[in-house]
Amino acid sequence: MRLRGRKGIRESLERQTDLVVLEPRNYKGKWHELFGNDRPIHVEFGMGKGQFISQMSVKYPDINFIGVDMYDELLRRGAEKARAAHETLGEENPANLRLALANIEYAEEVFAPGELERIYLNFSDPWPKSKHARRRLTHPRFLDKYRGLLNGRGEIHLKTDSVSLFEFSLNAFADYGLQMTNLSLDLHAGGINEEHVMTEYETKFVGQGMRIHRCEAIVGEEALEAYRAGRLSKYRL
Amino acid sequence: MRLRGRKGIRESLERQTDLVVLEPRNYKGKWHELFGNDRPIHVEFGMGKGQFISQMSVKYPDINFIGVDMYDELLRRGAEKARAAHETLGEENPANLRLALANIEYAEEVFAPGELERIYLNFSDPWPKSKHARRRLTHPRFLDKYRGLLNGRGEIHLKTDSVSLFEFSLNAFADYGLQMTNLSLDLHAGGINEEHVMTEYETKFVGQGMRIHRCEAIVGEEALEAYRAGRLSKYRL
Ligand SMILES: C[S@@+](CC[C@H](N)C(=O)[O-])C[C@H]1O[C@@H](n2cnc3c(N)ncnc32)[C@H](O)[C@@H]1O
Ligand SMILES: C[S@@+](CC[C@H](N)C(=O)[O-])C[C@H]1O[C@@H](n2cnc3c(N)ncnc32)[C@H](O)[C@@H]1O
Repeated sequence: MRLRGRKGIRESLERQTDLVVLEPRNYKGKWHELFGNDRPIHVEFGMGKGQFISQMSVKYPDINFIGVDMYDELLRRGAEKARAAHETLGEENPANLRLALANIEYAEEVFAPGELERIYLNFSDPWPKSKHARRRLTHPRFLDKYRGLLNGRGEIHLKTDSVSLFEFSLNAFADYGLQMTNLSLDLHAGGINEEHVMTEYETKFVGQGMRIHRCEAIVGEEALEAYRAGRLSKYRL
Repeated sequence: MRLRGRKGIRESLERQTDLVVLEPRNYKGKWHELFGNDRPIHVEFGMGKGQFISQMSVKYPDINFIGVDMYDELLRRGAEKARAAHETLGEENPANLRLALANIEYAEEVFAPGELERIYLNFSDPWPKSKHARRRLTHPRFLDKYRGLLNGRGEIHLKTDSVSLFEFSLNAFADYGLQMTNLSLDLHAGGINEEHVMTEYETKFVGQGMRIHRCEAIVGEEALEAYRAGRLSKYRL
């Protein structure tokens, strides 16, 4: 039964080549070609069921989005969500969105140096035990990877409910020498912001009255210059 | 009655010239002379009743401490606390501690450039309304002052229960280009640390189960170099 179910998922994913990328290594260095344009690529590492990346791709048609997760079942649900979201726009398929099956551990086999402009880490697994610190997606060994993949305008945007992961991440960004900006310890303090696209986990946690933490870390030189000149928000548009 | 009480406080403070400094402007550029040595000077801006600065001065005899507050009644209580703390050491008076009556707004009239090595901001008033942002002790206009007063090893150590003040301060430090380190979003998560000297407010809030936030911001060039070389904690001793 289990096997059959999984086979069904695979078959469904294999039929969706317009949206789902099951062998993302094939596109290393060729993602812009795949999207058919030179616009910035924003990825979410650990997209889960894909609510965030789907809504972002609807909201920002001039950005290319890639949702990455390592579970095919999540990609299947993500694909459903993405199609439903883009249908409201009357689009046949989401041209500026791909969902990729990959383990972030091997991100550098999937993306070429400088191919990405932004990495979203939303509600990443906190791995609270210190012996698991290396698995946290903001561990320096991951920051090394991200820096390699991001372009001159590169940024990492982190959102989490986890106090311990947020604390760890702020220290990791600071120790790594990354300029932080737009830090928030209670993102929804002023009420839910319509501008703000929420993830599945975020929707759940905010409903439970939990505080959401957020931080942007600037990686690319050009982004850093823009930040220092006080024109980061403008230049991003 | 009120006046009499205040007069009594003044008279008590005036008798304690060994510990209390009522006209701190007179010592601008001369604090090392007053302490009779060249050891680092650590100040607490807004010391309240003085528990922290008293205990620190007992714990670290090789550092000179100055507790600053703008209310004479707090200085009186601080002086009591300081004498009690140092009595346990069999000292007649606390040689490495002074309590100064001053408004931090005019810090540069009390301390000369480079005269200080560390500034402690403990549970500073959060001033939550945005129209009062300028009064927060981590507002850039205060950071400007602090930078002027700190020496090459200078650091700012911030501790607060306030989510809004901490968020504001992290953004202020980041925007100011200060290297942050030892960030904590829940200082007592692992239980109270004996090493850690607590303030009056901290004792109260921890008792209520509130989370304490802490951050160090590196200001001086020499401290920054030590931090980058990974030997900050060693070099501080
Ligand atoms: C806690 S969920 C958050 C999902 C979504 N971002 C949200 O905020 O609702 C974390 C997700 O990261 C994925 N994930 C964790 N480690 C991963 C890895 N090494 N490679 C790819 N995905 C990973 C998990 O499968 C899971 O879907
Ligand atoms: C909330 S209390 C904290 C006291 C102590 N640091 C603690 O943690 O228990 C803030 C203190 O800062 C002092 N303060 C606030 N603004 C000040 C200023 N501009 N100059 C001097 N002291 C100030 C207040 O008088 C008060 O004692």
